[in-house]
Amino acid sequence: MTAVKKYEFDGEFKMLRGTIASPSFAYETWGVLNDSASNAVLIFTGLSPSAHVASCIDDPSSGWWEDMVGPDKPIDTKRYFVICVNSLGSCFGSTGPASIDPETGNLYRLGFPVLSLEDVAEGGALVLDHLGVDKLYAVVGASMGGMTALAFSLLHPDRSSSLVSISSAARALPFSIAVRSLQREMIRTDPDWLGGEYQHDKGPVNGMRLARKLGMISYRSATEWTERFGRERADAGSDGPGPFGIDFEVESYLEAHAKRFIGTFDANCYLYLSRAMDLFDITDHGGSLHGGLARLRLDRVLIIGVETDFLFPVEQQQELATGLKEYVPEVDFRRLDSRQGHDSFLVDMDRFRPAIASLF
Amino acid sequence: MTAVKKYEFDGEFKMLRGTIASPSFAYETWGVLNDSASNAVLIFTGLSPSAHVASCIDDPSSGWWEDMVGPDKPIDTKRYFVICVNSLGSCFGSTGPASIDPETGNLYRLGFPVLSLEDVAEGGALVLDHLGVDKLYAVVGASMGGMTALAFSLLHPDRSSSLVSISSAARALPFSIAVRSLQREMIRTDPDWLGGEYQHDKGPVNGMRLARKLGMISYRSATEWTERFGRERADAGSDGPGPFGIDFEVESYLEAHAKRFIGTFDANCYLYLSRAMDLFDITDHGGSLHGGLARLRLDRVLIIGVETDFLFPVEQQQELATGLKEYVPEVDFRRLDSRQGHDSFLVDMDRFRPAIASLF
Repeated sequence: MTAVKKYEFDGEFKMLRGTIASPSFAYETWGVLNDSASNAVLIFTGLSPSAHVASCIDDPSSGWWEDMVGPDKPIDTKRYFVICVNSLGSCFGSTGPASIDPETGNLYRLGFPVLSLEDVAEGGALVLDHLGVDKLYAVVGASMGGMTALAFSLLHPDRSSSLVSISSAARALPFSIAVRSLQREMIRTDPDWLGGEYQHDKGPVNGMRLARKLGMISYRSATEWTERFGRERADAGSDGPGPFGIDFEVESYLEAHAKRFIGTFDANCYLYLSRAMDLFDITDHGGSLHGGLARLRLDRVLIIGVETDFLFPVEQQQELATGLKEYVPEVDFRRLDSRQGHDSFLVDMDRFRPAIASLF
Repeated sequence: MTAVKKYEFDGEFKMLRGTIASPSFAYETWGVLNDSASNAVLIFTGLSPSAHVASCIDDPSSGWWEDMVGPDKPIDTKRYFVICVNSLGSCFGSTGPASIDPETGNLYRLGFPVLSLEDVAEGGALVLDHLGVDKLYAVVGASMGGMTALAFSLLHPDRSSSLVSISSAARALPFSIAVRSLQREMIRTDPDWLGGEYQHDKGPVNGMRLARKLGMISYRSATEWTERFGRERADAGSDGPGPFGIDFEVESYLEAHAKRFIGTFDANCYLYLSRAMDLFDITDHGGSLHGGLARLRLDRVLIIGVETDFLFPVEQQQELATGLKEYVPEVDFRRLDSRQGHDSFLVDMDRFRPAIASLF
């Protein structure tokens, strides 16, 4: 069962650095749009999730933010009409490098234009048009989703009253660029990548495994892992023979996460979305951080950062919140003491529930 | 020209987890041993350096700690007799996986016993025996070298008056294990690794490149890179064609570092030394941190940690220093505000010179 709906855009879709023909945008919705169409909430995702934020009747499987979105949850679907869009460039229903180019009949692969988060944001705006939502109560995103939500707010200053940005960035900084660049290199140098020409069932599995493991290393925190794993040894035989196989529990944990990821995400899509994060820079919208922020027409902003996040450090959230105070009447900055690093918004519900609920 | 001397051990060398026949230990020395043989300083290295700490008449090339060791430097070779040993398991003159096993005439490769930092420390002790040094003024190490210096102090409690431990660990914690495990996996999954059976000039170059880049990411700090690179773009054409090549200056920096590393370090040696760090745990010497520390017979300890080091966090240095206070009369803990992360001891000389000089 699926709850995914598709909006098929008819015509030429202009991207920041190219054009594609008639893309699809996959999305899901929860709740009901009220008569004044004033209760809509748009959620942009991080790099890898689909639009399935939460379970629903048509798809009872757990969503990636199951504890945050639903009836009587912090983003209460009894009160809000919630929309989540699968990012342009991704592989869960929206058009991306793994989709067929209608003009050639072949997969786009590396023929897909260089992707920007502005393009992803425009996809969200098109879905809003399609749904008859002129103005959002809030646009929400964490990680890449937060960057996209900011891009949306810059491109469409009048289309949302509020912005919720979690563990995100107004521009990518070199440490996170280095991590993502290395992840992409792991994939690109896997001989099975074949310059992007791999067959669907024979992709760069090893490159994706390595990239996902580096992802997990950068998404969590040393503090969490010391408490959780310490120097616990893994069960014997979990990685077969050889002197350099899995020994410690933390290695077994990374392997399990990587295995779950492989086969679910297309490698070329990963490369495009990863690079789109590197390229994002608010200074492209107004020449500077403040030039960009001055374009916003928001009433209220909630910025959340996490002490243990070293990929999108809390200082970056602080800087954004401080800048916003000059241009947005109500800015709430929450610095959370979560232990789970960048991924805290997915797992530290005790701290994140009340923080998110404060705006809804 | 080389200043490297070799001590050829004659007979069976017992390691913690195996035995090898008649290993060599490469070392260099600076300064002169005084009549009472009381001015000797032994330096253990990090994972990748050779014994060439500093330039000398026989080898005027710069050493890896050129600014710290030499005449009138913080470790003043006019006053101290300084010894540095290439680690057992490495590939700069000491026996390791890239050496010939005298019993078979072939390279050890993966037939080399599982390496421990205790074995590396014992190599240092043998060189001291050979040089007629019964008791050191100080044993010194940073990173892996600090772990080895601690192992030396645990195995030979009466052989040094002082210990200098920089950005090191009394036991490997899961975050650093995860990083090293992933580096090893990058090398092991390079098809050119061939299960360790690669030819010298056809090793796993790509795996080593990726591993070195992850090393650099974990050795420096986001703060440094934001200040140093920001979002500067690299010179055009530095990585040939393709949409995912080098774009930002930080990527170009990583590539340059990786290129310098490739071909200088043997892949199997890297695997062995990397795993030896994971395996090190002071609790193997006395059942607990305090059980281990209680074995020490040091007069004086200098522990240095760096705020921006996330591979060997400053809290780990603090914990070690606090524990040591119960067993060592004089413990000096210095928490340095260096920006360059784990590598600060190699580059932030303005902060490190006075800290090191305080003990010499």
